[in-house]
Amino acid sequence: GPVFGVKGGGTGGGACQLVPMEDINLHFNGDFHAITSAHNLLAAMVDNHLHFRGSPALDARRVRWPRVLDMNDRALREVVLGLGGTGNGVPRQSGFDITAASEIMAILCLATGRDDLRRRIERILVGYTADGQPVTAADVKAPGAMMALLREAIVPNLVQSVEGTPAFVHGGPFANIAHGCNSILATRMALHHADWVFTEAGFGFDLGAEKFYDIKCRVAGLDTAAVVLVATVRALKMHGGVAKNVLAAPDPAAVERGLGNLEQHLAAVRAFGERPIVALNRFYADHPDEIAVVARYCAGAGVPFAESDHFMRGGEGALELAELVEAHAEPESVPYTPMYRLDEPLLAKLQQVARTIYGARDVVMSAQALKDLKEIERLGYGNLPVCVAKTQNSLSDDARRPGRPRDFEITVRGLQLNAGAGFIVVLTGDILRMPGLPERPQAEAIDLVGEEITGLR
Amino acid sequence: GPVFGVKGGGTGGGACQLVPMEDINLHFNGDFHAITSAHNLLAAMVDNHLHFRGSPALDARRVRWPRVLDMNDRALREVVLGLGGTGNGVPRQSGFDITAASEIMAILCLATGRDDLRRRIERILVGYTADGQPVTAADVKAPGAMMALLREAIVPNLVQSVEGTPAFVHGGPFANIAHGCNSILATRMALHHADWVFTEAGFGFDLGAEKFYDIKCRVAGLDTAAVVLVATVRALKMHGGVAKNVLAAPDPAAVERGLGNLEQHLAAVRAFGERPIVALNRFYADHPDEIAVVARYCAGAGVPFAESDHFMRGGEGALELAELVEAHAEPESVPYTPMYRLDEPLLAKLQQVARTIYGARDVVMSAQALKDLKEIERLGYGNLPVCVAKTQNSLSDDARRPGRPRDFEITVRGLQLNAGAGFIVVLTGDILRMPGLPERPQAEAIDLVGEEITGLR
Amino acid sequence: GPVFGVKGGGTGGGACQLVPMEDINLHFNGDFHAITSAHNLLAAMVDNHLHFRGSPALDARRVRWPRVLDMNDRALREVVLGLGGTGNGVPRQSGFDITAASEIMAILCLATGRDDLRRRIERILVGYTADGQPVTAADVKAPGAMMALLREAIVPNLVQSVEGTPAFVHGGPFANIAHGCNSILATRMALHHADWVFTEAGFGFDLGAEKFYDIKCRVAGLDTAAVVLVATVRALKMHGGVAKNVLAAPDPAAVERGLGNLEQHLAAVRAFGERPIVALNRFYADHPDEIAVVARYCAGAGVPFAESDHFMRGGEGALELAELVEAHAEPESVPYTPMYRLDEPLLAKLQQVARTIYGARDVVMSAQALKDLKEIERLGYGNLPVCVAKTQNSLSDDARRPGRPRDFEITVRGLQLNAGAGFIVVLTGDILRMPGLPERPQAEAIDLVGEEITGLR
Amino acid sequence: GPVFGVKGGGTGGGACQLVPMEDINLHFNGDFHAITSAHNLLAAMVDNHLHFRGSPALDARRVRWPRVLDMNDRALREVVLGLGGTGNGVPRQSGFDITAASEIMAILCLATGRDDLRRRIERILVGYTADGQPVTAADVKAPGAMMALLREAIVPNLVQSVEGTPAFVHGGPFANIAHGCNSILATRMALHHADWVFTEAGFGFDLGAEKFYDIKCRVAGLDTAAVVLVATVRALKMHGGVAKNVLAAPDPAAVERGLGNLEQHLAAVRAFGERPIVALNRFYADHPDEIAVVARYCAGAGVPFAESDHFMRGGEGALELAELVEAHAEPESVPYTPMYRLDEPLLAKLQQVARTIYGARDVVMSAQALKDLKEIERLGYGNLPVCVAKTQNSLSDDARRPGRPRDFEITVRGLQLNAGAGFIVVLTGDILRMPGLPERPQAEAIDLVGEEITGLR
Repeated sequence: GPVFGVKGGGTGGGACQLVPMEDINLHFNGDFHAITSAHNLLAAMVDNHLHFRGSPALDARRVRWPRVLDMNDRALREVVLGLGGTGNGVPRQSGFDITAASEIMAILCLATGRDDLRRRIERILVGYTADGQPVTAADVKAPGAMMALLREAIVPNLVQSVEGTPAFVHGGPFANIAHGCNSILATRMALHHADWVFTEAGFGFDLGAEKFYDIKCRVAGLDTAAVVLVATVRALKMHGGVAKNVLAAPDPAAVERGLGNLEQHLAAVRAFGERPIVALNRFYADHPDEIAVVARYCAGAGVPFAESDHFMRGGEGALELAELVEAHAEPESVPYTPMYRLDEPLLAKLQQVARTIYGARDVVMSAQALKDLKEIERLGYGNLPVCVAKTQNSLSDDARRPGRPRDFEITVRGLQLNAGAGFIVVLTGDILRMPGLPERPQAEAIDLVGEEITGLR
Repeated sequence: GPVFGVKGGGTGGGACQLVPMEDINLHFNGDFHAITSAHNLLAAMVDNHLHFRGSPALDARRVRWPRVLDMNDRALREVVLGLGGTGNGVPRQSGFDITAASEIMAILCLATGRDDLRRRIERILVGYTADGQPVTAADVKAPGAMMALLREAIVPNLVQSVEGTPAFVHGGPFANIAHGCNSILATRMALHHADWVFTEAGFGFDLGAEKFYDIKCRVAGLDTAAVVLVATVRALKMHGGVAKNVLAAPDPAAVERGLGNLEQHLAAVRAFGERPIVALNRFYADHPDEIAVVARYCAGAGVPFAESDHFMRGGEGALELAELVEAHAEPESVPYTPMYRLDEPLLAKLQQVARTIYGARDVVMSAQALKDLKEIERLGYGNLPVCVAKTQNSLSDDARRPGRPRDFEITVRGLQLNAGAGFIVVLTGDILRMPGLPERPQAEAIDLVGEEITGLR
Repeated sequence: GPVFGVKGGGTGGGACQLVPMEDINLHFNGDFHAITSAHNLLAAMVDNHLHFRGSPALDARRVRWPRVLDMNDRALREVVLGLGGTGNGVPRQSGFDITAASEIMAILCLATGRDDLRRRIERILVGYTADGQPVTAADVKAPGAMMALLREAIVPNLVQSVEGTPAFVHGGPFANIAHGCNSILATRMALHHADWVFTEAGFGFDLGAEKFYDIKCRVAGLDTAAVVLVATVRALKMHGGVAKNVLAAPDPAAVERGLGNLEQHLAAVRAFGERPIVALNRFYADHPDEIAVVARYCAGAGVPFAESDHFMRGGEGALELAELVEAHAEPESVPYTPMYRLDEPLLAKLQQVARTIYGARDVVMSAQALKDLKEIERLGYGNLPVCVAKTQNSLSDDARRPGRPRDFEITVRGLQLNAGAGFIVVLTGDILRMPGLPERPQAEAIDLVGEEITGLR
Repeated sequence: GPVFGVKGGGTGGGACQLVPMEDINLHFNGDFHAITSAHNLLAAMVDNHLHFRGSPALDARRVRWPRVLDMNDRALREVVLGLGGTGNGVPRQSGFDITAASEIMAILCLATGRDDLRRRIERILVGYTADGQPVTAADVKAPGAMMALLREAIVPNLVQSVEGTPAFVHGGPFANIAHGCNSILATRMALHHADWVFTEAGFGFDLGAEKFYDIKCRVAGLDTAAVVLVATVRALKMHGGVAKNVLAAPDPAAVERGLGNLEQHLAAVRAFGERPIVALNRFYADHPDEIAVVARYCAGAGVPFAESDHFMRGGEGALELAELVEAHAEPESVPYTPMYRLDEPLLAKLQQVARTIYGARDVVMSAQALKDLKEIERLGYGNLPVCVAKTQNSLSDDARRPGRPRDFEITVRGLQLNAGAGFIVVLTGDILRMPGLPERPQAEAIDLVGEEITGLR
């Protein structure tokens, strides 16, 4: 889906790229399709249950299971379905999320095996009866067929870099709208086969890594030996207030101004009881003076620092960084400190993340969010971790605030119980779980020339 | 989709089955997923065009491109989308068809290569401007990305029977809602590699075969050497008026009464200038007296007849039939006679099919159908063949009329121009292009036991 | 409502006009408002019943009670309401009719007193339970409050012509979308106070008068002493095929061609066992040669004929007609012959009206109409009279066929049970029960100048 | 509308009642109907403009003009209209308010004459073009016909009490959802004819009186000679925390606890530079000890106080109060002090009202409210007064907080520009502009017995 909008693909670039790139970015092994099918089969079973008035008696207005498509399609965010008469189901408001935001995606990534996958699917909350009793996927008898659809998708996919380094690509819950980590099964499989395993927890430490620790590691009993924060001169300049169209011009002062953002991320790493390493991902246009600003800052802050030029030079370009990691990795793992205990109240967990990781002053709950909170606690799910959906463009929930914003509040629009995935989705700011295409979508540039796909980024 | 409802899979059964059965019936090589994605990408591009008021200025009320899902999901037949404010696209009524009914499915099956595929995609009609000018897929700049998504799907899939006979499974436009034939590329590939190629034109000669000749063969320049009508005692008894739940009891008189249906199909074969062969597909419960009724009838009518017991005995069980076909196949192909010329008026083509193939007295056009007809002719597409969507349970458009109904009218609800596929979809009776699940869907019985999928039929 | 569109008001014109004209055409005594309120109160009670899941358990998809507004507002024809969450009722498809088409309007006009009004309101069908049991206005406890709202509206309104002739104006069910007659109470009150009572049964004998006899007279036990068919040269020319913009030019040949229309109406009058009188309503622009055509035709057909110039000359202009009526009125009333017996099947009643009154060859029932018919008969309402909604511009159901069309079919889109009014609404062609405004609505010309309303026609 | 829900009528009770009570509470002189018609005519003209793509080119997603009905009908709060195809207008989300919340109602009440009425109607904002240009009622050419519909409604209605005291009843914008004052014309007419004029500014001083001063008096150049705060023992007990079902039991301590509410209102009166008088509206069940609490408090606070027993004894029961008012009225009017200047920023005006009148700590603007604010200022309407829609059950925006809440925030959901009425509607808390019926609506108890309406409260 997203490759047709503005976002590039997820396979890296230059000399440091996973292959087969087009497959990974389009249909790949069909995992996203299988997840989409399993998700929508459950939706069809839910609406069929409504149509035939199955037991327990779901209330059409209290269904909580959307549909998904792997497509940037804003027109599907809010729909009324079931129209056209009594033969066409029960009219109700609903909507579509992008597949990356599907609870099935999260479940697949958090399942520790097929049995666990089934148990999680069974307890998915699909809605309520008129008197507020929860109705699950098991109640509408969908889990068996969903398991059949996910038979292959649960198996990790092994690919390789252009240099032949093995890599697992498995699952894709984007960190701005979901929990942001690849599958536990893939990570475990990697750990069984390699001495060193690197995992990406995407979209900034505030989004990907917080959830990596507080959700994935907690479920899987994983820990980390080292944490590499990847910085770029371009991003720091943006955080220093430089507009997108003039990023190419050297501007060490802007890099300097943007360091606050890096500083907040470093503090966040330490709040997990880990020691950060900073890697500067080199771009062609970076000016030595700009790089020097970052190096100097890290030296002053006592943070190991290395440039990395894998884009231009492949593995060789990352040797310095590799050695740095080897040198600073914990010889024996010191367990990370979670950001919160599961038995704390939900709001406290959220405040802890917002204050410590984002640097917010406080969390503001909308009326809807308070209602959701009460509901979730009533159902006995107050002990789940939180999974914040937030813009990736700012530490705050407002995409237009770069750098290190201070004295801001995180506004919570609503909470969604993902009982199968085992977390509470926290919708902040105006982040949407179904993106739209831009006015000039990348899709217009994509083509098939002979048998080769062009225009994919 | 359909395997979760009442319909069984499409891989045969018993000793005569294609493998790997679960794959073919679920995700297979991802062709259906790719078609779904390409179809919905075009839909997203259309709504994006509306949202950003692209040029030419599509009228939201005159968009003609639905979305598709490979799912039996009645609640999606009619939806209002684009709700929730100016950020969420333009509100409009629309709906979802099942992927088998997608014009992209038809296009993929009728394309004679990648270039032809592209040309067909480009000319898909997606809607109109406010003053009635057609807007195409090319106008919204979607074809390139759609081509990329279909790169693999256009390649035929080679599988085999449990006995090792090679088989192509490629494309799935159900004959009751679409044109019912596998891809031209697969058929041509088979013809290049084998002396004898059998192709299934599903759901009754009235649906599958009529379109096989009038649409697929016409486009591909194909012809047939022999036509095998497959009959079953069960089906003939149903056409003889026997209820579904008592079909097991032997009832030669009912078989006799049901022969009218066979007779109409035989007449239809001959109307194409072909000589029919009747194959009786044996079921375990068939009584010799019942089979004798059919054999006697064929003898009397001068039609070659053979029992075929491939379900129980595999290829060996079909030897008699194979010899019969070999004996009666045209040594040199006599070209088939199309049911109509393309330059006849649309209504005349439709009447010709309805009268000659279905045995109808006449065609009744609804007000909407007449409006559609006028519109299609205005756009200069009156010269396309017709592709009738009609129930498979009756020669008429009323599923409750078995046997050989007489003196009936075919009621046309509406026409849809499939400018890319190159035909006019004719919606008759109450046939729907998006099925629903039954009260007890097969999905409830499907499961994954270990790594094995169970409950698929 | 309609005065804002294209239709003129209902108070006559020239020297023959009812006063106070602006009041009668706008709010008048508030009867339309009261009917609108009572109708919509029932709708609110129905949706409240759904919202609180009252007993009997209405199925939201089977509610049959629309809302009404006295406004030409096409955007309200089809709506989805109950959106916005569980606090806002139950989502469902519904729509608005114009107040003139409200069943409450028909009930008010057919009620023989307050007790009868209440009984009719109580038995209004508002929908069904999921298993098809009817739910009535009494079931949702609305009748008492509706009666309170209609307290004044049920009382006939006495106005006068500009010459002081008393006139009752009470109720307004337009004959193209409803039963077309003023209230029984007003007619009875007039009969108690006057020697001669004239009643208008609007929009052509085929619409207004058929229902006047078969519905109103049947209920009220009324009969007529004489029947005056009002013809105009303009209308006859239109029926003779003359376009609207050239009607002003004299064209006796066109009048001649249009006589077929008059002829069919004359036959219809006779089919009720009555003797028609033809009144030619003079317009300023009528040419003597044109009038002569009509006079000659009537003479030839043995039909009493008079010109009437009340528009220019008031009562005096209608003296000749009045004398003609006096001369030809039945000295002792010979009861009229209804078009059908109530115990005939619904379809037979409809065919009888279509063939005898409209001159149709037959009635074509859509699939929906057949379903409705079955439903109505299942509920035991097959013995009600039919109330056809049909265009007023043609004897057929196609507004573009003037004159006396022959060999045509009346297509029935659907049937609606008005159990309170006591008839079955038959929707034919594309007649709508909620009109729209034209591109240049009359509303644009209406204004208030000082205290005077201008632009009303 | 509201009399069918839980709210009683608006004509007083006991010996102090306006007559004719049923008329005033139901159709009365048709003013509400006329306002409803004028409002909905504009809506129909707006949708007609969209349908025919009139100029300026309204954006269907940016229409801001709802429809209204004088009915408690929650199912109409949010609708999708314009469905059913190109003939039925343009699909869009919209909704219905109750007539009391109509901008036309506010305009009628604030108009100083017919010319002013017209000017206000002309500048009503109905929506925007796609590039944000405002579109007005004048642009869609509706004002003339709306003026015609309002011809009579603009004229004040004179009724009387059961004792014959004249009273004007004209306009009904409820103070919780609108500006809460009767018409300027009626007040002026009263001032021309009487030495003393009392006006009610309903639903608590925080709602009705604040708007009376800041909106009505400001527009009309009115001032007050005295301010009477009407208190009841029942209400004070509720503010003291007593549940509704045990209000009958004497509880002086609860009255004492509830005085904080009265205190806040007294402070608010003084903030306008006026001296409050407290009238205790006697109920049959009030205990002398309870009344003594209020009397004692007022004595201590130096506030003139009188019991008033008009319910039981009519005018005679209010003599003491009348004398008190006469004694304390300003001999020469000292102009009231508005709560804010019009040239202050909108947010400042709102904060001033919230803090001074409600006793709130601050105002919290939702994202939508901030967007609306920006839009309103962009259009140059920042200089209008604010009209807060807020629950009448609490000084705060949360109906469940009685007494004198402290340290609370007023949450603003959104702002609506009423350019015709000349104020900005501020939606706070969860106040809705279309109420719903309760589970047991009063409508169930209303009936017509003979010619008498029963069950109206």
